Amino acid sequence: MPHTMRKIVHASDAPLTLAEASVPAPGAREILVRVAAAGINRPDLAQRAGFYPPPPGAPETLGLEIAGDVAATGVEVTRWKVGDQVCALLAGGGYAEYALAHEGSALPIPKGLNLIKAAALPETVFTVWANVFESGALKSGETLLVHGGASGIGTTAIQMAKAHGARVFVTAGDDAKCRQCEQLGAERGINYRTEDFEAIVREAGGADVILDMVGAPYLSKNINAARPLGRIVTIAQLQGAQAEINLALLMVKRLTLTGSTLRSRAVEEKARIAREVERHVWPWIEAGQVKPHIDSTFPLADADAAHARMQSSAHVGKIVLIP
Amino acid sequence: MPHTMRKIVHASDAPLTLAEASVPAPGAREILVRVAAAGINRPDLAQRAGFYPPPPGAPETLGLEIAGDVAATGVEVTRWKVGDQVCALLAGGGYAEYALAHEGSALPIPKGLNLIKAAALPETVFTVWANVFESGALKSGETLLVHGGASGIGTTAIQMAKAHGARVFVTAGDDAKCRQCEQLGAERGINYRTEDFEAIVREAGGADVILDMVGAPYLSKNINAARPLGRIVTIAQLQGAQAEINLALLMVKRLTLTGSTLRSRAVEEKARIAREVERHVWPWIEAGQVKPHIDSTFPLADADAAHARMQSSAHVGKIVLIP
Repeated sequence: MPHTMRKIVHASDAPLTLAEASVPAPGAREILVRVAAAGINRPDLAQRAGFYPPPPGAPETLGLEIAGDVAATGVEVTRWKVGDQVCALLAGGGYAEYALAHEGSALPIPKGLNLIKAAALPETVFTVWANVFESGALKSGETLLVHGGASGIGTTAIQMAKAHGARVFVTAGDDAKCRQCEQLGAERGINYRTEDFEAIVREAGGADVILDMVGAPYLSKNINAARPLGRIVTIAQLQGAQAEINLALLMVKRLTLTGSTLRSRAVEEKARIAREVERHVWPWIEAGQVKPHIDSTFPLADADAAHARMQSSAHVGKIVLIP
Repeated sequence: MPHTMRKIVHASDAPLTLAEASVPAPGAREILVRVAAAGINRPDLAQRAGFYPPPPGAPETLGLEIAGDVAATGVEVTRWKVGDQVCALLAGGGYAEYALAHEGSALPIPKGLNLIKAAALPETVFTVWANVFESGALKSGETLLVHGGASGIGTTAIQMAKAHGARVFVTAGDDAKCRQCEQLGAERGINYRTEDFEAIVREAGGADVILDMVGAPYLSKNINAARPLGRIVTIAQLQGAQAEINLALLMVKRLTLTGSTLRSRAVEEKARIAREVERHVWPWIEAGQVKPHIDSTFPLADADAAHARMQSSAHVGKIVLIP
């Protein structure tokens, strides 16, 4: 067991670079994971740019999800032992050779998945579960509209909603992405540059649940596209947070507007979500109904190129770093 | 059983006047009630002004709640028989000597209440139940903020929330109304003309549920006054519906913004709410924990004066018409 490791350090307006650091020691309920693969997520880009500081107590190092094998365990850890293979949601620190995870935020690798695919699961699966299935309460037979359908969140939401028996509509930025989303199970990919999602979704009967990461410019259209009693869940505001809303329309349609972030939740809350995910989503993955869609992998040293690819929005699915 | 009756007819910009009309005949699942008392509600003023048309199939005549005795029953009515005393939520038609109610929207008179007090119950009790207890999911020990605390809705919400074990803060337009709300069980009446409700509620730890009828000017302050995971429920927008909202703040605090109207709901849905109200709220009323607060009564012929009193906002509690 080495004392030092390599990790990525970041500063705004500077390239991501490798640096040497101490291997962290697990707290009582933490596990130390030797990282085989680390997923990249949009909040990493926001944090790097200075817009999304880590919550109190979280590592400064980027990286919200990993897979690998357990290298050490805290004194109160009961579920995991050294050598177990896990994937885990982190509060940070994934862009490194070793990372700490709370034992409750770690899950076994679903049967049939390698560690690269498993590393691409936690952030998107937890986010979709917490927002579409819990906050949005999507039911079988209902219709889900996902903006950013080709994103990691989007490709995961399509498959999970489909496995649950829902109809799925998505928006994406070009026709090729729309067709890829349809291959993943979306009934209709809508090219937001050339088509009117509000009209198309209304024509199809409206959406019961809308997962939004666009923000202000989409709020009124989302309200119009929602069915009565629909739920609109905001998980990011990539094009602005300060929006206009017609409260009378919200009221008359009896809509619910809500939203959440995952990272700031308490460890007990994340552990609760992890248990639900293991119970409901892991079987879908093991049955092949939900497959992590890997866009590309990059060596840890090339994290900068990996970020550039996400920034370009050319990707479909997840981008993963390999230490 | 007479064939004709007196009812109030309305036109915008004209006084409310009495007119003769046919006594309506009950449909299969309706009861005909000889009206002893009819509650006045703000939507009546909006409908009279032309801003709140009755839903399809509802009577043109004003009046959303009554109490009286059953004068006739439809062929499929099972719960009620001629002579029973009931109070009922109506889709309209209460400002009259006779009115039709769906059997599921009628409830027995709570023990100890006269018909005037019973007529003041349905609209506010159903509204508070559906919005504060169902949509808002107010739990014992939580804090409720009610705007318009001295209104019929407000005085009812204070008492129901208090009976449920919640803390209650209210806003009202003068100090005397604030003190009356405190006598009904509010921990603190906030004079919105001289005090900052956002600061006072935040200082007290924030609100878990906010019942709002003010609309646009209050939305940001409500979001700031809400505790994490709080629920804001809009049931009217007396000062404007087109509002600004910060979606990022909603997301970070994991708030829920929702709203509803009662009148447009299906009869089955109203019957479901009626059953919940009878099960949960009627015992509070019969135990004296929730008392309809009557501001004043007016003869049916003086409906115009009754409306003027509500329009002036001088009232505290309910205004009731006596045919």
